[in-house]
Amino acid sequence: MKKLINFILLFVSISILVNGQRKVVHLPDLPGYVTLKCDLHLHTVFSDGNVWPTIRVDEALRDGLDAIAITDHLDYFTHTDYIKTDHNAGWKVTELYAKERNIILVQGTEIGRDMPPGHVNALFIHDATSLVKDSVWDAFEAAIQQGAFLMWNHPGWKHQQPDGIPRLYDIHLKMIEKGWLHGIEFLNFIDYYPLVLEMCKEHNLAVMGSSDMHGLISETYKIPEYTNRPMTLVFAKERSHDALREALFAGRTLVWFHEMIAGRVEYAKPFFYGCISVSKIYYENDKKKFFEVTNHSDIPFSLINGKRTPKSVVLEANSVTRIAVSKDVVFPITYEVSNVLIGENEYLKIELE
Amino acid sequence: MKKLINFILLFVSISILVNGQRKVVHLPDLPGYVTLKCDLHLHTVFSDGNVWPTIRVDEALRDGLDAIAITDHLDYFTHTDYIKTDHNAGWKVTELYAKERNIILVQGTEIGRDMPPGHVNALFIHDATSLVKDSVWDAFEAAIQQGAFLMWNHPGWKHQQPDGIPRLYDIHLKMIEKGWLHGIEFLNFIDYYPLVLEMCKEHNLAVMGSSDMHGLISETYKIPEYTNRPMTLVFAKERSHDALREALFAGRTLVWFHEMIAGRVEYAKPFFYGCISVSKIYYENDKKKFFEVTNHSDIPFSLINGKRTPKSVVLEANSVTRIAVSKDVVFPITYEVSNVLIGENEYLKIELE
Amino acid sequence: MKKLINFILLFVSISILVNGQRKVVHLPDLPGYVTLKCDLHLHTVFSDGNVWPTIRVDEALRDGLDAIAITDHLDYFTHTDYIKTDHNAGWKVTELYAKERNIILVQGTEIGRDMPPGHVNALFIHDATSLVKDSVWDAFEAAIQQGAFLMWNHPGWKHQQPDGIPRLYDIHLKMIEKGWLHGIEFLNFIDYYPLVLEMCKEHNLAVMGSSDMHGLISETYKIPEYTNRPMTLVFAKERSHDALREALFAGRTLVWFHEMIAGRVEYAKPFFYGCISVSKIYYENDKKKFFEVTNHSDIPFSLINGKRTPKSVVLEANSVTRIAVSKDVVFPITYEVSNVLIGENEYLKIELE
Amino acid sequence: MKKLINFILLFVSISILVNGQRKVVHLPDLPGYVTLKCDLHLHTVFSDGNVWPTIRVDEALRDGLDAIAITDHLDYFTHTDYIKTDHNAGWKVTELYAKERNIILVQGTEIGRDMPPGHVNALFIHDATSLVKDSVWDAFEAAIQQGAFLMWNHPGWKHQQPDGIPRLYDIHLKMIEKGWLHGIEFLNFIDYYPLVLEMCKEHNLAVMGSSDMHGLISETYKIPEYTNRPMTLVFAKERSHDALREALFAGRTLVWFHEMIAGRVEYAKPFFYGCISVSKIYYENDKKKFFEVTNHSDIPFSLINGKRTPKSVVLEANSVTRIAVSKDVVFPITYEVSNVLIGENEYLKIELE
Repeated sequence: MKKLINFILLFVSISILVNGQRKVVHLPDLPGYVTLKCDLHLHTVFSDGNVWPTIRVDEALRDGLDAIAITDHLDYFTHTDYIKTDHNAGWKVTELYAKERNIILVQGTEIGRDMPPGHVNALFIHDATSLVKDSVWDAFEAAIQQGAFLMWNHPGWKHQQPDGIPRLYDIHLKMIEKGWLHGIEFLNFIDYYPLVLEMCKEHNLAVMGSSDMHGLISETYKIPEYTNRPMTLVFAKERSHDALREALFAGRTLVWFHEMIAGRVEYAKPFFYGCISVSKIYYENDKKKFFEVTNHSDIPFSLINGKRTPKSVVLEANSVTRIAVSKDVVFPITYEVSNVLIGENEYLKIELE
Repeated sequence: MKKLINFILLFVSISILVNGQRKVVHLPDLPGYVTLKCDLHLHTVFSDGNVWPTIRVDEALRDGLDAIAITDHLDYFTHTDYIKTDHNAGWKVTELYAKERNIILVQGTEIGRDMPPGHVNALFIHDATSLVKDSVWDAFEAAIQQGAFLMWNHPGWKHQQPDGIPRLYDIHLKMIEKGWLHGIEFLNFIDYYPLVLEMCKEHNLAVMGSSDMHGLISETYKIPEYTNRPMTLVFAKERSHDALREALFAGRTLVWFHEMIAGRVEYAKPFFYGCISVSKIYYENDKKKFFEVTNHSDIPFSLINGKRTPKSVVLEANSVTRIAVSKDVVFPITYEVSNVLIGENEYLKIELE
Repeated sequence: MKKLINFILLFVSISILVNGQRKVVHLPDLPGYVTLKCDLHLHTVFSDGNVWPTIRVDEALRDGLDAIAITDHLDYFTHTDYIKTDHNAGWKVTELYAKERNIILVQGTEIGRDMPPGHVNALFIHDATSLVKDSVWDAFEAAIQQGAFLMWNHPGWKHQQPDGIPRLYDIHLKMIEKGWLHGIEFLNFIDYYPLVLEMCKEHNLAVMGSSDMHGLISETYKIPEYTNRPMTLVFAKERSHDALREALFAGRTLVWFHEMIAGRVEYAKPFFYGCISVSKIYYENDKKKFFEVTNHSDIPFSLINGKRTPKSVVLEANSVTRIAVSKDVVFPITYEVSNVLIGENEYLKIELE
Repeated sequence: MKKLINFILLFVSISILVNGQRKVVHLPDLPGYVTLKCDLHLHTVFSDGNVWPTIRVDEALRDGLDAIAITDHLDYFTHTDYIKTDHNAGWKVTELYAKERNIILVQGTEIGRDMPPGHVNALFIHDATSLVKDSVWDAFEAAIQQGAFLMWNHPGWKHQQPDGIPRLYDIHLKMIEKGWLHGIEFLNFIDYYPLVLEMCKEHNLAVMGSSDMHGLISETYKIPEYTNRPMTLVFAKERSHDALREALFAGRTLVWFHEMIAGRVEYAKPFFYGCISVSKIYYENDKKKFFEVTNHSDIPFSLINGKRTPKSVVLEANSVTRIAVSKDVVFPITYEVSNVLIGENEYLKIELE
């Protein structure tokens, strides 16, 4: 019977140093799959970036990513006065560092040419040097021989495509025909290309999103609570390098950046329903009945519906939204989710039951 | 094949107004129970507080609480020049407002006397006015007749107990004997009393924590990410008023404030294990093996262990912590959790398997 | 020669409690005047608000205001079951509390009628009760006899003016003619009315901005770094009640909310130039010369200029912006400041020298 | 008379990209001097760091620094497999980049030896290569011939000084005697050495503070509002490279990190008084008189005083603190500032007048 402590003395988390832990990002898995958060387009001092490759792993931990690829250019180096050209350096320097930190590291490189075909990432290769070829077609072939996943980067990059409209040129169509193109960047850095969603639907390709970061993630994007960096969400059979590879070739992806989700409806729909849960009517009065929608994820959703009260609902991330509807409303209520893009001009349609 | 959008145009969450949604707090349920977050000691303008009662519901939504009680003093009013004394006003004004917002509202009041017995909250009553009695014992009896849960508030409050040490006086022991005392505040505002943990163990009472707020939660506590307001976590059979009542009488509680959890070991232990998960060894080298501990909750945990590498580990909230141990370490590894208090000087002991 | 301290032990600001200090807002004074930050339209439990009046002072301290007015309705009360009607209660309860905290408290009330004339605040009165009159004109006269400053509130409030367009009706013109109208709200809550700028110019009235808060400032506006609550900036001869009054009657005001400044050009222009300073050319190379613009204030400014490089510049708050211009650019460079409104469709024009 | 805009449409600062502006840090100048914020101990990929040198300039802009030195080791390289050894590379790569951004870049290097003498930075040199010598004494001489400012780094670094206590060995005393030692790090990374304050007083050396950063500032220190990175505040005649050099040789410095200021009393005292202003008595009642202390700076100050009410005062950064004292208190009131260190165990004494 003796003690009073007037003031809280236990400050577990008081530290002035960042701790190197991996953030838990609140996203649902899909039935049969785990959701891997990936940024598969990153640069370092070994092409025209400004950071040592291990920094990309540190950033991945901080941002809660599961997998990254370092994809330095094969043909563009800004630090040659000081840095030896070694197309596999990013991989070699980082391999063990990533392993100890449980980050899946994908070996890759970026094959750069004028448009067409523009820039193409080769992922899951084992030797970038053998992709240095005069003919881009030879480069692709060398990549394919290593089992590469080929991703067409920033297809509407204004530097190469002044009107900004991505077009599938003959060479791209020929790649698709041979099974040599597996994904296209819908989102690169802060630009996105709705047409890519149509291309991927038509040709059964993976919809991809990447930061294409050269500097620092934290010094490039403003990062408040929901300003998440660009990433590809990959629905893999397990959290492993090989399962990631299988899922990418199968095209099981969505893109997430900031407050936007984009991809094919077959993944966007169960993903959305995985993020939310709808309660029963918990209260009613003379005029209205009340229910709740819980958004368990880190992604806010904006529901729009011209017909019924309420016309629009924002389901903020990690929040429970109260919805009051007229007593005569018949369920389900249908909405479009205005920040989930499933086609060039098409938004995900959902029902609240 | 036509469109590029250069810049993100969809800002779902851009708004300059707070939205009134209920925060999702990341805490585990216990097997067979849901975890209800409760602050059962709050004041309003109807005693000596500064806010209209409905504000307490708005605060509960913002902070992710499930239940609150407005417990204005029966005997202390600072605004009598302007406000009519009505001991049930807090309840009457708020009842419907809470119902529409799916916040469980508990009717209550605070019976105030000099120490002993000090201040006692009567919760789950239906008429506070009938508790206005000259004799405190009569007041308790009137509360008990209404089926009240009686909670002894701030038992070491320096104003009433100058040395700050809580003591069970005869009147408290008599209350316990008759089954008229059901819980004691371990935590009130920012003060906490480790001895209360021993009292509650010995006499089988609920360990309680409350803000005892008179002003505004948001203008009193600094609220960064983890500075959570004081609350009692109650392990109830379902999210309902009656299940909350049953769980409180059964003493199934923990207290959470800021970075501290306190209560009986039978709840603290499964709660801690519900917060975390331990991975398999995901990598080993010549010297070390690596595994991960994921803390899925909003509460950081500080593990301390004099014997082994690492001697201390902080499991930050919503983070995955990488732990590297010598290859010859034998599992399980045991730790004390220095911010989970289960006795006057006793911390929760846990094992990582 | 003896000591090492490995870790920072001095955490001055670690506290879990808010401290009640007054925020320093970084804004310039104008030559001969100090800039007073004022919110002169606030409600409490004494009309249809939800807080005790002293909370308005606490909020003012936290937000760095110099002056507030509590302006409860004369004719609209939502808590009459519990709260005694006393039109001067807000003032009486708060007067001493504000004095001790060095917040200038202005006595006021809100005279409410259908449109026209709508709602009008009477500020700097000494007895609100005597303004209770059947005829609104009698109410205005009673206010004027007390030396009141009369402010027309939310002139385009959709509830009273369904098309949202503010109009000077006969009664307003008659008020102006008699010198009985002194200011109009350009901004109320989150709505603003550009036309009010023209009205104030033409009739020489003070441009006003207020929160018209009924609940809590902190629970209504999202408050990140720059989301400042609505306020009238008043350029007064000193920081005192009487100097504030003189300045308001003289119309020396601007309105600030969030990232917008609005008012008459004679105040907006020196205010903008007081916020910034322009450096000399600090570096030049073959093509460009470089200079810096420092924004010393808490308000970001957006400069737009179709003609020259750079076409647009954002001067973030409390930041130094580097500007590179062609070597042949001739100073001064002219810009419009797109977030400083000086007329219905007119933005402040400035020069960088 | 036509327009209403319901909602704020002007979001000047909404952007998802960081803007590269330089933060304004609120610190006072001293009479006759401008206060330059400097971090003169930084590493890059050209020794054992992880970033390209230009990143150090980007960080300086973000953090509001005026000057930095890149001081890669002369003798320790972790990336030699890929990066060419060039002791002047950090300087050459960064010189123009810093100039365009108006950051003062100081050429430097770190001369590393076992203790004694430990590690020494040579600043304001023009060729680091000529400092590569077998004898450390020869290295110092080569630096001195280039006009170097020599700073003894982390004098109590446990790796070299296991008890953590800094000691002036013979070689240091000999350096001092010859005028070859000009400053000592009181603060390095997160460690600080109070004894250094005594050494600098006795031998008239500059008190220095540096981050000694190898990775990223933003990924190392947690950076909330006041967690400022380590820096040396230098009181220079103007904001220029040469004025910085003159001021350092003259020893006109303080160290700032997080919430701590340290250095010689002759600079600490006017710096403190430059940060604050004390108001007149603005109100008094029967018992007390009230005045205000405004802290205009980004540094909080903790005042402690055993004798009088109030015994302790925290002057939060950018805040106005209200102080109430008994009517019979005689001014000035004296305090110690517990976060301004001016000797091994000595805190700044100040008076409020």
